[in-house]
Amino acid sequence: MALSKKPVTGMRDIMPLEMQLRDYVISVIKETYGKFGFTSIETPCVENIANLSSKQGGENEKLIFKILKRGEKLDLENARGEEDLVDGGLRYDLTVPLVRYYSNHSNELPSPFKALQMGNVWRADRPQKGRYRQFMQCDIDILGEPSNLAEIELILATTTTLGKLGFRNFQIRINDRRILKAMAAYSGFPEESYDNVFIILDKMDKIGMDGVSAELKEYGLEAESIEKYLDLFQGLEEAKDGLLYLSQKLQGVLETEVSQGLEEIMASVKATKASEFEIVFDPSLVRGMSYYTGTIFEIAMTQFGGSCGGGGRYDGMVGKFTGKDVPACGFSIGFERIILIMMENGFQIPGEHRKVAYLVEKGMDTGRLCGIIAKAQEEREKGAQVLVTRMNKNKKFQKEQLSGDGYTEFAEFYKNPLKQ
Amino acid sequence: MALSKKPVTGMRDIMPLEMQLRDYVISVIKETYGKFGFTSIETPCVENIANLSSKQGGENEKLIFKILKRGEKLDLENARGEEDLVDGGLRYDLTVPLVRYYSNHSNELPSPFKALQMGNVWRADRPQKGRYRQFMQCDIDILGEPSNLAEIELILATTTTLGKLGFRNFQIRINDRRILKAMAAYSGFPEESYDNVFIILDKMDKIGMDGVSAELKEYGLEAESIEKYLDLFQGLEEAKDGLLYLSQKLQGVLETEVSQGLEEIMASVKATKASEFEIVFDPSLVRGMSYYTGTIFEIAMTQFGGSCGGGGRYDGMVGKFTGKDVPACGFSIGFERIILIMMENGFQIPGEHRKVAYLVEKGMDTGRLCGIIAKAQEEREKGAQVLVTRMNKNKKFQKEQLSGDGYTEFAEFYKNPLKQ
Repeated sequence: MALSKKPVTGMRDIMPLEMQLRDYVISVIKETYGKFGFTSIETPCVENIANLSSKQGGENEKLIFKILKRGEKLDLENARGEEDLVDGGLRYDLTVPLVRYYSNHSNELPSPFKALQMGNVWRADRPQKGRYRQFMQCDIDILGEPSNLAEIELILATTTTLGKLGFRNFQIRINDRRILKAMAAYSGFPEESYDNVFIILDKMDKIGMDGVSAELKEYGLEAESIEKYLDLFQGLEEAKDGLLYLSQKLQGVLETEVSQGLEEIMASVKATKASEFEIVFDPSLVRGMSYYTGTIFEIAMTQFGGSCGGGGRYDGMVGKFTGKDVPACGFSIGFERIILIMMENGFQIPGEHRKVAYLVEKGMDTGRLCGIIAKAQEEREKGAQVLVTRMNKNKKFQKEQLSGDGYTEFAEFYKNPLKQ
Repeated sequence: MALSKKPVTGMRDIMPLEMQLRDYVISVIKETYGKFGFTSIETPCVENIANLSSKQGGENEKLIFKILKRGEKLDLENARGEEDLVDGGLRYDLTVPLVRYYSNHSNELPSPFKALQMGNVWRADRPQKGRYRQFMQCDIDILGEPSNLAEIELILATTTTLGKLGFRNFQIRINDRRILKAMAAYSGFPEESYDNVFIILDKMDKIGMDGVSAELKEYGLEAESIEKYLDLFQGLEEAKDGLLYLSQKLQGVLETEVSQGLEEIMASVKATKASEFEIVFDPSLVRGMSYYTGTIFEIAMTQFGGSCGGGGRYDGMVGKFTGKDVPACGFSIGFERIILIMMENGFQIPGEHRKVAYLVEKGMDTGRLCGIIAKAQEEREKGAQVLVTRMNKNKKFQKEQLSGDGYTEFAEFYKNPLKQ
């Protein structure tokens, strides 16, 4: 069979220059999140197909890379469908594996448990520019913390990390699924329509108030309810303090602790006086995943065309595994997007060391070669990066290439010691 | 469908304590190899099934996790066999992907190209203690360097890394496939028997000279040849300088450059005066993979029961992809084994920072909470790890747990400021 030089469809090789940046970003993320008490964990890339198909993953469950059973378990002849052939799949996110992990190990873990996960996930999406079928996710989650200390720590850890990576002027937008629901209830929408109302509301950024109105009508909701709903958003635009406005308007359908909780999160985050970003209440923020039960948040970088990550509270998911709910809240950085932005902006990795290239002529006698190798090793011990390589015939071109790779110092070693 | 709390068969979750060590080891490896001019690269975990089944992987090709075709490409009804259902697989090593990567990108890469890869590989081995179906490999390779500068740099980079991780008294054993062949030729074994002779020789450590003799006889080789072969090993045991002994004995069947090359590698490595390890010529070293064409080497840690990595020269593999051979040489550290040894020896990660836990009573008013959050953030900026968590009812137990997680300083914040 012919061998293929290309990576599989929709996946990509990562070149040295990008890897250098990725390694740097990973180290900043691990160090910064570590300062907040998050500890790294890892789960296998393969999960049981039943766990991946349990309706926690929404649309992503249609995009699973499925793994064939092996050995005696594979019975092609009697297989009636895919389910007879497959026992595992590549994970499509890090949340389902985290919840499985926590359910399996909660006895051995501190409570609350603050987890950091960095790992690849796979989705068989239609290949398109800038979107790959294997990509890195970077999630922090706090399990077992019911209070909004979880949200505060997650948001601060994430924004501090982004700040350390040089990001400025970004926004954290925050909302609560319970506010979304209360607004829908207040307007008189039937409960079974909520999910669809939110899907339409999510397009507010793109299609505006009129567009949302038209789509709600098309979906078959009553004109009176739609008007009442959009009046709320109109009022919000004019209100000085949106949260205060809503907590007054929604009395009776929204518990006061919800708006108080958001208030407290925003105040605590602002109290750190971080100047890189602002945190704002955004009542039109929806976040797709249906597993969210409370607060939801998103990183908005308008200068880079949109969201660079997000998260929220999903208090019900652990119970799916254990029968007993555990409070849970997470924040995911859009790692690939962040790398792309940093690459495009020509980000310079700080604090690089000396880079020296030793060019060694062929045919050097062993004794002199030994001396050169020992010298290189000494320089490395002192902190320099030293490349020992053979001298090419076209030495000028070789040095140009090495300069391109970042080498700024050169030492040449000839067979004939007098040439030194 | 019932959800499973366990990881899939043969794979495992990694707990925070081990992850901390893994992260530390990864950072030491990246930094040390970086000093030698190795640059990180990454390839997708999924490869085309044709590439994985091209006979480069030996026995590992029987252990592939195969991935089902998706969408319209999957035609269950008309599938006659596995090959109709599968288009990809999880990589079983990092060498085949590296060679594909190099073939695909050699125009954009420096020559010689020094690559560092750290990544998971998958093998559907029968599950057994300490052996998992997903594990991390850590490979360095030099492509495009025909001279033994490649071997010298690979060995020094690897031993320097092991030294930085605290390993002492280990051995690098080195041999050359061409010496193995010359010894077989000198003894008069037929060429088609070489691979089997080497497989038997590989057991020398376990079954001794007599055992090897018996198995060679059983395999059907002539008694005279066997005697001649074992006499060589007998002579080697008595010889002061094994390499010199062999180069004299094997005159005519072994090119002098082979033994000179090994000599030079050993001398250059010794010239660095590294005291952590010794490098020795081992004529019974075989290394399994049939793709090796020249030098082969292995890290021996007898106190930990055997090999902790190895590698060698495989000048023919790039040609399988491009039609044009490129010199190639690699060294792989047994990452999982190293982690296991370090865990068992209670390795202490150096240079940890202050670890402070803030215990915050429930119901704190927002203003005071803001102050606490701001203070935590300041301490983090100054380098401390600060965990902000709610105060449990059983504070004593909570502190004991946190001590177990490494927190040595505690600050308590009460609702009632007078309690402070």
